Amino acid sequence: MTSLVLTNLDSGVLHLTMNSPQNRNALSVEMVSALCNVFRDAKNNKQVRVIVLAANGSAFCAGHDLKQMADARAHEDGGNAYFHEVMGDSAKLMQAIVNHPRPVIADVRGVASAAGCQLVASCDLAIASENSRFATPGVNIGLFCSTPMVALSRNISHKHAMEMLLTGDMISAHRAEQIGLINQVVAENKIDRAVNLMAEKIASKSMMTIETGKSAFYTQAQMDLGEAYRYTVDVMAENMMKNDACEGTTAFVEKRKPKWTDS
Amino acid sequence: MTSLVLTNLDSGVLHLTMNSPQNRNALSVEMVSALCNVFRDAKNNKQVRVIVLAANGSAFCAGHDLKQMADARAHEDGGNAYFHEVMGDSAKLMQAIVNHPRPVIADVRGVASAAGCQLVASCDLAIASENSRFATPGVNIGLFCSTPMVALSRNISHKHAMEMLLTGDMISAHRAEQIGLINQVVAENKIDRAVNLMAEKIASKSMMTIETGKSAFYTQAQMDLGEAYRYTVDVMAENMMKNDACEGTTAFVEKRKPKWTDS
Amino acid sequence: MTSLVLTNLDSGVLHLTMNSPQNRNALSVEMVSALCNVFRDAKNNKQVRVIVLAANGSAFCAGHDLKQMADARAHEDGGNAYFHEVMGDSAKLMQAIVNHPRPVIADVRGVASAAGCQLVASCDLAIASENSRFATPGVNIGLFCSTPMVALSRNISHKHAMEMLLTGDMISAHRAEQIGLINQVVAENKIDRAVNLMAEKIASKSMMTIETGKSAFYTQAQMDLGEAYRYTVDVMAENMMKNDACEGTTAFVEKRKPKWTDS
Repeated sequence: MTSLVLTNLDSGVLHLTMNSPQNRNALSVEMVSALCNVFRDAKNNKQVRVIVLAANGSAFCAGHDLKQMADARAHEDGGNAYFHEVMGDSAKLMQAIVNHPRPVIADVRGVASAAGCQLVASCDLAIASENSRFATPGVNIGLFCSTPMVALSRNISHKHAMEMLLTGDMISAHRAEQIGLINQVVAENKIDRAVNLMAEKIASKSMMTIETGKSAFYTQAQMDLGEAYRYTVDVMAENMMKNDACEGTTAFVEKRKPKWTDS
Repeated sequence: MTSLVLTNLDSGVLHLTMNSPQNRNALSVEMVSALCNVFRDAKNNKQVRVIVLAANGSAFCAGHDLKQMADARAHEDGGNAYFHEVMGDSAKLMQAIVNHPRPVIADVRGVASAAGCQLVASCDLAIASENSRFATPGVNIGLFCSTPMVALSRNISHKHAMEMLLTGDMISAHRAEQIGLINQVVAENKIDRAVNLMAEKIASKSMMTIETGKSAFYTQAQMDLGEAYRYTVDVMAENMMKNDACEGTTAFVEKRKPKWTDS
Repeated sequence: MTSLVLTNLDSGVLHLTMNSPQNRNALSVEMVSALCNVFRDAKNNKQVRVIVLAANGSAFCAGHDLKQMADARAHEDGGNAYFHEVMGDSAKLMQAIVNHPRPVIADVRGVASAAGCQLVASCDLAIASENSRFATPGVNIGLFCSTPMVALSRNISHKHAMEMLLTGDMISAHRAEQIGLINQVVAENKIDRAVNLMAEKIASKSMMTIETGKSAFYTQAQMDLGEAYRYTVDVMAENMMKNDACEGTTAFVEKRKPKWTDS
């Protein structure tokens, strides 16, 4: 049995590769479960400093598995319980990425649509090849991309989100970069290098520092200004008491490379 | 008596045209009331699938009617009650657009200033001709654009909004597109086509789906992440139980055009 | 003793110049205190209509004073109390800018990093010369830029903020403009003119109007839509009852320059 998600840990970078090209890496029940598992395992693995989420095949991820959803209509309740469960599990996966202690970089080569586009929006960073495209096309099949828009609207402006959601149209990687859905668009033959550069750079930092900062980022983003400052002042002062902050500031003054020991 | 707002319903697209070019389509008491009425009527008209808001004359909309406001200073209370009423009614109009079940597209050809700029920001989508310009110039007449900034700051970044609000300067249609105030800027001789293309595309979708999605969008945007996911998971699972979602997903699998029946 | 912050009031524009080029205008305890003092004094000085924050030397501001922080590690508590105080005072400075009744324009020529980048993000407007650069590099020394990200994430999109925070990389002035961190980037020999033009334009407005609007802007930005409209309708109606609004609207109708008398 082939794994739905391939994993490869190299120098602190955990490469996750969705491996179901035959159904365009759809977020089937099995794929969502497999992704949740690898993200959970990565949480407990101190060797993992950064996670890269990529995909095999021509599509990054086509969203929910429509065939599985159609089959569920035969259930006694018309699929109601099943739909709640599938959507709920997918939402848990997205939040597991946002709440994951390690940074997650989407490495997009191909189409990311519906919940696939939501995956990209949920990652901390995203790099895409020039031939990538993005869409929230649920509106075309009578099923508005209502969970994808949660991630989308927390990353791009209302008008840009509404255009994608109401038209269902594909946008290019360049447009996605313009509107802030992704960080960077690069030529197809350069995306390996661009993703590795970004991942290795982040992997070279103090993990304690990265985890402190990522968690604080999404927490403070939901607070009002005064509350956010009260909270981050505490976060930063506590950060200063850690070994890596002591080592980092000392190394900076001594103009040498720091050696991280916190984990 | 000429209508302040012309209406024309064509293939599911309701074209609203502000028709008071002599005062640059100012949001007089009468114009606000007329717009509120047509939006309310459109809500109850199942034939209306998308609304386009345009204007006759060289200006899209010049904001509040300063002459009417000046006249109110002669009231016993110096206009106080009147100002609250006028501003309140205008705020209700803007919220009627945001809360309207059908998508509203601003079709801008000319100047949209003050509450006119707020109108554009309040629409779900906006397309503007190259000669259009946008401003919140209240600061130039001692009356800060405080209600317009509610819509503005929910669409563009703080620094961009502050620049428009503090300087009162006009910005070009190209700049408005760059900062995300509008979706698209097109040549003057192509805006008809661009607006119709967008409107017809959206009108071709399932109205149940569009209404579900638009309403959920603005609701979840004000929630924190966990709450937004709990809410949209329910929205999406309920959406799946509707006829149009069944028809849409089936048609997708069967590679045919769906036939919408929900309304 | 040389002043840490030079002040020069000219035609309503208060020019503040951080003047500690030898330590790259670091936010030492003394610099934070000096800045808090001049901002507090400016609040009570009716001559001040706009504030420009600039810096002497090749850096705009390098962030916290790492040497002072390192020295505090010798304290009995390892610096814990000191770190809380320093971070807290810096957060108060940033909020003093946001809550200041007068608009504050950052005039950036050189590097703005860590809390220096936060200063720029906290100003209402920012103009930078082409050679300016911006970074939140705390991650490189084991101390995540957790307070800077409060200001950053309220100005730029999540993915752009995360890229700066997780990589610690410098971005160019052009990139800073693209992502909305600053309003405008200009050639080095034109920044004086650009800043003065912006400052003088804002200084020519009614101060009552500007203060009303700036304060309302940040207040409504933290409310939900309905609440924001209820609040700003009151703000705007009250604004209409002021002399400057009467004068401004009258002057507009009479096509003459208004004479402001409110203060």
